[in-house]
Amino acid sequence: MRAVQVVGYHEDLQMTEAPIPEVTGPWDVLVKIGGAGVCRTDLHILEGQWAEKSQVQLPYTIGHENAGWVHAIGSAVTNVKEGDKVILHPLVTCGLCRACRSGDDVHCEESKFPGIDSNGGYAEYLCTSARSVVKIDDSLEPADVAALADAGLTAYHAAAKAAKRLTSRDTCVVVGAGGLGHIGIQVLKALTPARIIVVDRNQAALDLAKSIGADAGVISDGTQVTHVLELTEGRGAEALIDFVGEGGATADGVAMLRRAGDYYVVGYGENINVPTIDIVSAEINIIGNLVGSYNDLQDLMALAARGAVKLHTQKYALSDFQQAISDLDAGKVRGRAILVP
Amino acid sequence: MRAVQVVGYHEDLQMTEAPIPEVTGPWDVLVKIGGAGVCRTDLHILEGQWAEKSQVQLPYTIGHENAGWVHAIGSAVTNVKEGDKVILHPLVTCGLCRACRSGDDVHCEESKFPGIDSNGGYAEYLCTSARSVVKIDDSLEPADVAALADAGLTAYHAAAKAAKRLTSRDTCVVVGAGGLGHIGIQVLKALTPARIIVVDRNQAALDLAKSIGADAGVISDGTQVTHVLELTEGRGAEALIDFVGEGGATADGVAMLRRAGDYYVVGYGENINVPTIDIVSAEINIIGNLVGSYNDLQDLMALAARGAVKLHTQKYALSDFQQAISDLDAGKVRGRAILVP
Amino acid sequence: MRAVQVVGYHEDLQMTEAPIPEVTGPWDVLVKIGGAGVCRTDLHILEGQWAEKSQVQLPYTIGHENAGWVHAIGSAVTNVKEGDKVILHPLVTCGLCRACRSGDDVHCEESKFPGIDSNGGYAEYLCTSARSVVKIDDSLEPADVAALADAGLTAYHAAAKAAKRLTSRDTCVVVGAGGLGHIGIQVLKALTPARIIVVDRNQAALDLAKSIGADAGVISDGTQVTHVLELTEGRGAEALIDFVGEGGATADGVAMLRRAGDYYVVGYGENINVPTIDIVSAEINIIGNLVGSYNDLQDLMALAARGAVKLHTQKYALSDFQQAISDLDAGKVRGRAILVP
Amino acid sequence: MRAVQVVGYHEDLQMTEAPIPEVTGPWDVLVKIGGAGVCRTDLHILEGQWAEKSQVQLPYTIGHENAGWVHAIGSAVTNVKEGDKVILHPLVTCGLCRACRSGDDVHCEESKFPGIDSNGGYAEYLCTSARSVVKIDDSLEPADVAALADAGLTAYHAAAKAAKRLTSRDTCVVVGAGGLGHIGIQVLKALTPARIIVVDRNQAALDLAKSIGADAGVISDGTQVTHVLELTEGRGAEALIDFVGEGGATADGVAMLRRAGDYYVVGYGENINVPTIDIVSAEINIIGNLVGSYNDLQDLMALAARGAVKLHTQKYALSDFQQAISDLDAGKVRGRAILVP
Repeated sequence: MRAVQVVGYHEDLQMTEAPIPEVTGPWDVLVKIGGAGVCRTDLHILEGQWAEKSQVQLPYTIGHENAGWVHAIGSAVTNVKEGDKVILHPLVTCGLCRACRSGDDVHCEESKFPGIDSNGGYAEYLCTSARSVVKIDDSLEPADVAALADAGLTAYHAAAKAAKRLTSRDTCVVVGAGGLGHIGIQVLKALTPARIIVVDRNQAALDLAKSIGADAGVISDGTQVTHVLELTEGRGAEALIDFVGEGGATADGVAMLRRAGDYYVVGYGENINVPTIDIVSAEINIIGNLVGSYNDLQDLMALAARGAVKLHTQKYALSDFQQAISDLDAGKVRGRAILVP
Repeated sequence: MRAVQVVGYHEDLQMTEAPIPEVTGPWDVLVKIGGAGVCRTDLHILEGQWAEKSQVQLPYTIGHENAGWVHAIGSAVTNVKEGDKVILHPLVTCGLCRACRSGDDVHCEESKFPGIDSNGGYAEYLCTSARSVVKIDDSLEPADVAALADAGLTAYHAAAKAAKRLTSRDTCVVVGAGGLGHIGIQVLKALTPARIIVVDRNQAALDLAKSIGADAGVISDGTQVTHVLELTEGRGAEALIDFVGEGGATADGVAMLRRAGDYYVVGYGENINVPTIDIVSAEINIIGNLVGSYNDLQDLMALAARGAVKLHTQKYALSDFQQAISDLDAGKVRGRAILVP
Repeated sequence: MRAVQVVGYHEDLQMTEAPIPEVTGPWDVLVKIGGAGVCRTDLHILEGQWAEKSQVQLPYTIGHENAGWVHAIGSAVTNVKEGDKVILHPLVTCGLCRACRSGDDVHCEESKFPGIDSNGGYAEYLCTSARSVVKIDDSLEPADVAALADAGLTAYHAAAKAAKRLTSRDTCVVVGAGGLGHIGIQVLKALTPARIIVVDRNQAALDLAKSIGADAGVISDGTQVTHVLELTEGRGAEALIDFVGEGGATADGVAMLRRAGDYYVVGYGENINVPTIDIVSAEINIIGNLVGSYNDLQDLMALAARGAVKLHTQKYALSDFQQAISDLDAGKVRGRAILVP
Repeated sequence: MRAVQVVGYHEDLQMTEAPIPEVTGPWDVLVKIGGAGVCRTDLHILEGQWAEKSQVQLPYTIGHENAGWVHAIGSAVTNVKEGDKVILHPLVTCGLCRACRSGDDVHCEESKFPGIDSNGGYAEYLCTSARSVVKIDDSLEPADVAALADAGLTAYHAAAKAAKRLTSRDTCVVVGAGGLGHIGIQVLKALTPARIIVVDRNQAALDLAKSIGADAGVISDGTQVTHVLELTEGRGAEALIDFVGEGGATADGVAMLRRAGDYYVVGYGENINVPTIDIVSAEINIIGNLVGSYNDLQDLMALAARGAVKLHTQKYALSDFQQAISDLDAGKVRGRAILVP
């Protein structure tokens, strides 16, 4: 089969011919790829930023946002069958550790991360585990939802956590209406009646945000803290989801919070640097957010099935991988680039 | 009545003769003071550190950890009657704002703080509200429990919040086994079967901690992070309550946390300064903690009534207030200094 | 002022001239009534069914679903001012008992119930407490929302409780799409992405249900259990809210539940009669629901303000009270009858 | 190996020679049995009460409360190794269905129940799954803890669920201080500071209950409801765990509950038969309880490891199985009968 591989850091990806993976274990699921998301993380991999952390051996196949059709299953697999349309949770988890047994599989003590530390989905086939496949609705196509597998799932996870504490009287600020923020807003809209205020540097992003459910948009031009405080009667918001995490976003974010408010960190880059006295006297919470669990992905796909969460995609043939990578690097992708084998 | 007052910043407190407060409003409760805790905050008040924040007008009566007997009540008071032994929640709250209506009265939008921004309890009588008095068990004496009103209540609040998420398989690290930590350990012991590891610079504090319920003590001599990790199979603790908040405690604390762990900030001084990538990739939470609510104080007094939480006190006659203040400042108080009118 | 009073059981209501209530206590709020809902409970009061329970002394003014404008306030009232549009929580609560201090004021140990055990809102003015008034949005009119004060609040309370546990993969069955069910469906729609299946005997009610958010309607003609099981792949629903509670609804309801499902009882009449072995082996929960709390009413009015919850009303002049009562008794009211002074 | 089997209903069990099960699947775990609890359910199996439900084919090996040592493991097993001491969760679950993925494995859609519907532990070896084995502390012996696998786990599950909602101001009534109740009391004691009132017909059981943590004992002689109400100032208890479920226990239980109280059903026999109006007006909850999850068993074994939960056992050689069964049937077993191969 064709597979796009990392052959060296600071080198271009290369298309190679690789053997189709085989189902050997009882929980194996072989998936024919229908779409693989091209993510900024892929650029970072090529720059060698993940080399030490992932310890992956080159060459290997990249691509960690995958969806497709079940092609073959191991002997113990009962949750999917050949031909099922599926999206793939980004992690392959053990199923036995405490985290896995608690539905919190993201913290699995022995997880694999295909596309990062083992072969991924820029290919015709990918072998994963029954624990990682989620059946998608007949109305959805793999190439359309693939990017929900990681970027979308991360946004879902943070937004759903925030929604659990929000009521119709609350305000949730979303900082950053890009790829993740755009999903986060749709998820909030589906899960909570709280008011949604979106903060972004880009007016077009704010306009899009409002068209998909945001109640108000605030331009991030230095006045954003003042503006959010005005919109919240000087008190700040009950919750804030920060999809940016750099360029001063964290200090601004804390300043936009109400007493006893919750700050959800998703984007990263800078340090959170807050006096303990401020955390204590306002009794705020700073809440970390990783990618969502398998259950989160199931919940997200249920939202997608009813059209509550939509993603704009720009599709490329698998053979055009270099174009997709270059477009992403050049900021020319609207929505999410997807490779279709 | 006699009352000890702040007459000027950077000046000694003075005993004066003041009129006994009168019950005028329907929710007023006049309390004959049985004991008033002497707190480090009182020293800070004298240094003028609270002047701007509290906007209190001098002279006024200091003392914010109070207990005693109900002496008179307003016409609408139904929860206590003359003669009842009571402890006083440190705040006088409005009862009408959203926070008050949700049981989260500490975030009341119009609260008063007797002893800080209005007359307090270094006196024979104090007028408070029916919303601030908690009846205590017959077996307890006001002078013995007064210091639970603020210091103890803060420790209770953080420990009870942590206990809600802990199971018998979890470990909770307590950093700092001084006044607050000492109550926090007892509360954890009463509320959760989780293992308690206490970290302190002082071996005597660790010995005391173990005698009141800690499962292990770790001396804070630079090896504490390593030692806690060893005790938790290299994974870190599910929760950590930091009663110190300075001198490097926050960086150490984050390093002692397990993936998805909870860091409870109680002590303050330095900044929490953590890369957002660390918060995100380990998915940890940093949780602020203020003093407890009225309900927390009720719960704490129920623990005290059955002997589950005890406080060591050193009593002084009200007229010896200067000695108490000087002893506290000189580090000569064992447990908590209490003024008894 | 004019007031419609119960002068004897099994007698007609009578319009009388009564003195306008005066603000005497500091927390009193005098409300000029803008609308008072006519409720089936009012018919039961006239039949004497509440006489023993309420111990009310005749004559007294009836009417427990009230909204209007603040006319005067007591000295301690800070949450509303003269001229504010308000809806009235049906209970006047003490603010001091454990339930009140926990935001669970419906279980107040000393509550009053105006219109049931003291003077109500079939009148030009009603005196209530600052603890019972909720400001409503400028866009709402008292006469339009009055019936949300009790019927709507009950539906909100059960639906919000259910929504807290539901995800996008779950199904919630609503049994009974009448007055309360109709609000419950709108609340579920606003609070959860779960699928909503409505069961009713009346096709018109099902059609209305679908127009306001139900995903499916099932006619209650003896096949309803089978039909709901078919719609849930034979497993039953994760939650069911029963607004009927009689005529076999409870046995049907339990049969429509999934393992570990939640049965919310709102309507009443018959007994819940289930073998303990069934409760244990399927591990289901049967959850009682009373009227909502003050916080629930605030949340509900926030939904109403954005148009998420609407109520069909049929207005009558206060002087036409007898017509309203007769129409209700004769089943001629579409939506909710409202008396407008 | 030796195995005690059901060879026919209404016939005695028989010792037979059976092949030692083999590890064939990658998740298989072969356990050398160290102790197997003899349970009243075993008597019911012999009476044929489970024949239709379990559809088990005779002959088969009985015994569903098992503990021992890992003898061999499949290729994918990472959570235990040969020689580990383990207790066995009573169910073998699929790991893929929604319930399993949520940590709620008891509601697995494809579970097996060894000893009920497949070969159990009255034998020298038992083959189970990696998903069902919990390592126990070095200080514990399989024969001592075997009965915690099912009876103890059920009690843990209900008590832990109740404890989650209880504070130091609450009261929890435990009805029935027999095998399960006895564990439930110890679990409550370890998990919550709430007051525990135990109700039983037998004074000796009450005395034992008090020795292991109950705060008060109430004899069940017809005055129990009155007595519990007296002990709770006429209000009833915040929670009640009913380990009896027959002979009028359910009506009594509801009568002992406070407004908004929780009734945990564990024992079964009679019907819960309560007017819906009572459920609604007091807003009580009736909560079903099945056996605990795998996580519950881990938590319970952590309590056992520190001596917080102890079980009295009466041991029999495997060959004396008939004596054990007869003693149980004759009410001659103190604590729990355990077969030791």
